Amino acid sequence: MSLEVIDSPRNQHVRFFRSLQRPKGRREHGAFLAEGARLIGEALQAHWPIKAAAVCEELLGGAAAELAPRLSQGPWPCWHMSERAFGALSAEETPQGVAIAAEARLVPLSSLSPQTSELTVGVWELRDPGNLGTVVRTAEFFGCRAMVAIGDCVDFFDPKTVRATAGAVFHLPLALAAPDEVLAWAREHDVVVVAATASGGEPPEQVSVQRPALLLIGSEAHGLPSEVEAAADLRVTLPRRGKVESLNAAVAGAICLSYLAR
Amino acid sequence: MSLEVIDSPRNQHVRFFRSLQRPKGRREHGAFLAEGARLIGEALQAHWPIKAAAVCEELLGGAAAELAPRLSQGPWPCWHMSERAFGALSAEETPQGVAIAAEARLVPLSSLSPQTSELTVGVWELRDPGNLGTVVRTAEFFGCRAMVAIGDCVDFFDPKTVRATAGAVFHLPLALAAPDEVLAWAREHDVVVVAATASGGEPPEQVSVQRPALLLIGSEAHGLPSEVEAAADLRVTLPRRGKVESLNAAVAGAICLSYLAR
Repeated sequence: MSLEVIDSPRNQHVRFFRSLQRPKGRREHGAFLAEGARLIGEALQAHWPIKAAAVCEELLGGAAAELAPRLSQGPWPCWHMSERAFGALSAEETPQGVAIAAEARLVPLSSLSPQTSELTVGVWELRDPGNLGTVVRTAEFFGCRAMVAIGDCVDFFDPKTVRATAGAVFHLPLALAAPDEVLAWAREHDVVVVAATASGGEPPEQVSVQRPALLLIGSEAHGLPSEVEAAADLRVTLPRRGKVESLNAAVAGAICLSYLAR
Repeated sequence: MSLEVIDSPRNQHVRFFRSLQRPKGRREHGAFLAEGARLIGEALQAHWPIKAAAVCEELLGGAAAELAPRLSQGPWPCWHMSERAFGALSAEETPQGVAIAAEARLVPLSSLSPQTSELTVGVWELRDPGNLGTVVRTAEFFGCRAMVAIGDCVDFFDPKTVRATAGAVFHLPLALAAPDEVLAWAREHDVVVVAATASGGEPPEQVSVQRPALLLIGSEAHGLPSEVEAAADLRVTLPRRGKVESLNAAVAGAICLSYLAR
């Protein structure tokens, strides 16, 4: 088998992958970048639609080396690249030599009809990609139904978000919604809205929800808007015993989620 | 009041602060760098020993502007710097114009004598500064007794760790220990050792500990060594319902901690 190896960082395929690091490129191509054996392994396991793959033999090792042949044999184009070319498309400090352009697939909020006791997680204007990805990972781990990014959140498909999901991005249905839409959706589907708040709510272990629930997690800097806290059916607050005012947003969300998901 | 404003990035005081970004500088000076109104506000509230302060008037705004006079009036030297000089010492992308060199104060493990039902958190070879800082923040929030970094962990006083603690670094007693030491300490003080494990443990809501406890959290990549899991008195495992294999180490630790701290 003879392989043509792309070496120029200006090659069109290198530029295509690299463009997916930015919102504009992701919008234009309807795709996002996922790198490394762990993420790509999850994409393959989930039969996620892949638009193209890139492999750099010089960088391969361990799990990435085992995975690379599956990328070469797929129904998508697979470009072989030199270390120089691959380095130019990668968003990683130490690239593993495998990357895919995965379809940027969201579900419409209206398609989510949660069943009894299913939990959906809504994040409100979360701005840190690592936090967003961590919440996706945690929600998927605890078997949540879906996740909704509400208002001006960071992108689910930012490379840092995708990395922090550890592959959960390929398993958990993800939706976008405007603030009004999400509350209307909850009413329509008889979903209990539970707001995670910094004060004034019940301890999460005392909350038991029999109907489908939507857990709302606020932004790092401002939490949830007060009108949303007020509009929620329930408010949960983690009891503070120490001196620091608050928890990291992803941590606070994860803890509330772990209680509600029981 | 006439102020001498340092402008050169090569000035000795600028170099002193900048050196605290690196382990070598922190070791040499027994100090660490903390920046921004939130962190420094917590340091002042905790009456933490401060070796020196730096202020850049041009960068001040909001809470940092309110805090700056307290830095100028303290018993420590306070250096006024231009934007150029301050930028050279700062580890932040958008520096707020206030920084301190805080004493790098740890407590000896032997000084920790936990009382009934007090929880101490031990992290085992945690390598990500953000994760370590997040665990410090969470442990302090839930009123833990102290935190112990076991084996080859990232530094409590790395600027990224300090930032992720959101100031908890100034409130929670922090100790270092070798693997053997920490288990010997637990035996000596009648402390129940609880290992957070990826499988095979009890769900954390079923665990109730009346004696003082030590929660051990493993590294991001490898968890806890199997001999440590085996040596623990109890093992707790968060029940997985989804497809991703594991949670982020800081999140898993935080959830276990929230249950044990009740």
